[in-house]
Amino acid sequence: MHRVAIIGGGFGGLETAKRLAKAPVSIMLVDRWNYHLFQPLLYQVATGGLSAADIAIPLRFILRKQKNVQVWMAEVTDIDVERRMLIAPPRQIPYDTLVVAAGVSNGYFGNDHWSTAAPGLKSLEDAAEIRARTLYAFEMAEQEPDPELRRLWLNFVIIGAGPTGVELAGALGEITKDTLREDFRNIRTEEARIFVLDMAPRVLPSFPEDLSAAAEHSLIRLGVRPLLGVRVVEIGANGVRFERDGRQDSIGARTVLWAAGVQGSTLGRLLNRRAGAELDRMGRVLVEPDCSLPGHPEIFVIGDLACYRLAGGNTLPGVAPVAVQQGRYVARLIQARLQGATLKPFRYLNKGTLATIGRHHAVADFGRLRFHGPLAWFLWLFVHLLYLVSFQNRLLVAIQWAIQYFTFNRRARLIVPPPRHAPAAEPASSSKPSL
Amino acid sequence: MHRVAIIGGGFGGLETAKRLAKAPVSIMLVDRWNYHLFQPLLYQVATGGLSAADIAIPLRFILRKQKNVQVWMAEVTDIDVERRMLIAPPRQIPYDTLVVAAGVSNGYFGNDHWSTAAPGLKSLEDAAEIRARTLYAFEMAEQEPDPELRRLWLNFVIIGAGPTGVELAGALGEITKDTLREDFRNIRTEEARIFVLDMAPRVLPSFPEDLSAAAEHSLIRLGVRPLLGVRVVEIGANGVRFERDGRQDSIGARTVLWAAGVQGSTLGRLLNRRAGAELDRMGRVLVEPDCSLPGHPEIFVIGDLACYRLAGGNTLPGVAPVAVQQGRYVARLIQARLQGATLKPFRYLNKGTLATIGRHHAVADFGRLRFHGPLAWFLWLFVHLLYLVSFQNRLLVAIQWAIQYFTFNRRARLIVPPPRHAPAAEPASSSKPSL
Repeated sequence: MHRVAIIGGGFGGLETAKRLAKAPVSIMLVDRWNYHLFQPLLYQVATGGLSAADIAIPLRFILRKQKNVQVWMAEVTDIDVERRMLIAPPRQIPYDTLVVAAGVSNGYFGNDHWSTAAPGLKSLEDAAEIRARTLYAFEMAEQEPDPELRRLWLNFVIIGAGPTGVELAGALGEITKDTLREDFRNIRTEEARIFVLDMAPRVLPSFPEDLSAAAEHSLIRLGVRPLLGVRVVEIGANGVRFERDGRQDSIGARTVLWAAGVQGSTLGRLLNRRAGAELDRMGRVLVEPDCSLPGHPEIFVIGDLACYRLAGGNTLPGVAPVAVQQGRYVARLIQARLQGATLKPFRYLNKGTLATIGRHHAVADFGRLRFHGPLAWFLWLFVHLLYLVSFQNRLLVAIQWAIQYFTFNRRARLIVPPPRHAPAAEPASSSKPSL
Repeated sequence: MHRVAIIGGGFGGLETAKRLAKAPVSIMLVDRWNYHLFQPLLYQVATGGLSAADIAIPLRFILRKQKNVQVWMAEVTDIDVERRMLIAPPRQIPYDTLVVAAGVSNGYFGNDHWSTAAPGLKSLEDAAEIRARTLYAFEMAEQEPDPELRRLWLNFVIIGAGPTGVELAGALGEITKDTLREDFRNIRTEEARIFVLDMAPRVLPSFPEDLSAAAEHSLIRLGVRPLLGVRVVEIGANGVRFERDGRQDSIGARTVLWAAGVQGSTLGRLLNRRAGAELDRMGRVLVEPDCSLPGHPEIFVIGDLACYRLAGGNTLPGVAPVAVQQGRYVARLIQARLQGATLKPFRYLNKGTLATIGRHHAVADFGRLRFHGPLAWFLWLFVHLLYLVSFQNRLLVAIQWAIQYFTFNRRARLIVPPPRHAPAAEPASSSKPSL
């Protein structure tokens, strides 16, 4: 039996496995975690609207009826491309075809020390950390008598104005204006300031300009302050220093969130060392038109980890539909090859993109058709519910969204576990902060 | 304005605060966490049936409309009983009346080193740890080729056959028989063995004998193996050693859970040092008939941390209804005192106790009236839904229970964060385990 090993149970890896359900192959799906994560809603877990179990589904549960798949919770530490063997201590996993769909992690453009001060949003643990830090900041502000130190707790800086940054900022705006409004006695949560920084001259830089403008308008109505065309030069426990128009400036803030960049999984570097894979600036693996690794037709790289170049010189974006379509393509190609055939190169069909900014607002880009406002927002709700993997989760997310819509409440406002790198609360008499 | 400080937002502290809503007092409710935890359902979070947000509700949200309460997330490290001041660095909180409702933590009878090998179930973090270890054990068993080592992963030992131990065992029994049945390829989850150990000669020793017998019968039907009249002598990463009838025996197991004992919060020891409070063997604070500290009428201790002696020599059990009734009493007493009056001593009204064992089975003890079986189970469901603090949580828990009832699925089967003290998976060739 032809052995297919898949690394990663995200959108790409899971789709590959499912589409091979009827193929005469035996599949080993390896993941560090035991669940598939619906990343597009991760920011809602980070902002207390949903719980982990609403957007993460055990891989075994999804694949329980597909008897040609084994799910293997393990960390792949090496790949022996000669012997066609994954090394996942203490075991080894042989393969005939390998699909690497290991995704990306937070990337700090070489400033890895920023990760402590500015957690990103790629995993459930990241989401718990962001949730804990954000809520903890309001708790500390409530207790802080010194107005300058209180201001540090009430300033929130989000670095990156792409979809993740904008969605985080929109949710934080709602939280401060509505959700928490009655909860505190010594602070007015509306006084929180939410900054969104980006190097680009506009928010949602990957969207058309008119939608960027609409998104920016919605953010400002939620009290969010976009700071665009700025370059971040330093991030510390007390805030962010940045450059704009050649002049340096800074924002003091205890809570800084990172939504500015990603880097390819360590599996990319492994493929570079072991199979001569070429990596782009972000550590993504350059692939052939059929998603395979140059010189290694038996290895495919798909999803966020792949750098798939288009004819014009652009590359495909790191979004779920690309991963899903590549997974589907690779599954078909594997089956074709087993029958001695081959396929035309992979082609991405862009069905459009959506991003939401608080309640009632979203932007929708379907190429020629593009619009924003409540209709886009309903579409966003509908599409995200539709794509949630399990019916049970669709039901429970829909109910929680309805509750949230009518009550402004976000149930999961839990500081648990406590923030990992929360700066110690300092006595009011302490000296003024420096970064 | 008379200042009331309350330490702990559990059943006792929260009830005290709520019942003082109309009193001319200013209340400071101090808690280490930002939520009230519905402890009776914590075992369902530990076994993947519910999420943290289903049973934990932000204290600020519960009390948002009660303007005479401030919620203060802080750790009380000392009490200055002379100056009537709580020390919660970097701040101090003055009080006129103090209510200590700080609860209990896992108690290992002087064997604190057991806590690493055998986590208890008192907090949300404990629940996440137990959930992660339990699910991780099945993942490791699936990957383990050596039958003896696999057996270690498939043995689960629960120490303590009180309500928590029995409810955990029942849920684990269901998980192995139903929930996970289709999920694995190399193991049959029904082969997992679940042991419940207790020093007492029967399970649920605090219940009448006929109900203990019924509970034991239900456990055995779920495949659980009660081992009674045993004394645990050692717990390690590879299992448990115990003594029965003067002979030593052991069970090899990678997963050992602690449900055998609790000890009073460190606040009890603080009251001992600072206010001469007398502690019982479990570190609980001996209180006067009006729940106050001997010699300190302005300090009350209520809930699990209090050791309230009854006329016959017994003490009140550490259960939610005791804490709630004591909180209500103390709130009334504080108001009476403000008007120069006093109250008769506290009296506990036992409304009955329930414990559940898997689906369809529970035991109900209402003094003369006692019964078990499906009716008791429905009553258990109803009472627990009823007492959940928020309507939203009642709705969402009810829906999840319904889903679980009909599909056997438990949505929150997530290993996140990874188990803290998971013994490293060892190569199959390693020597056989010792404790």
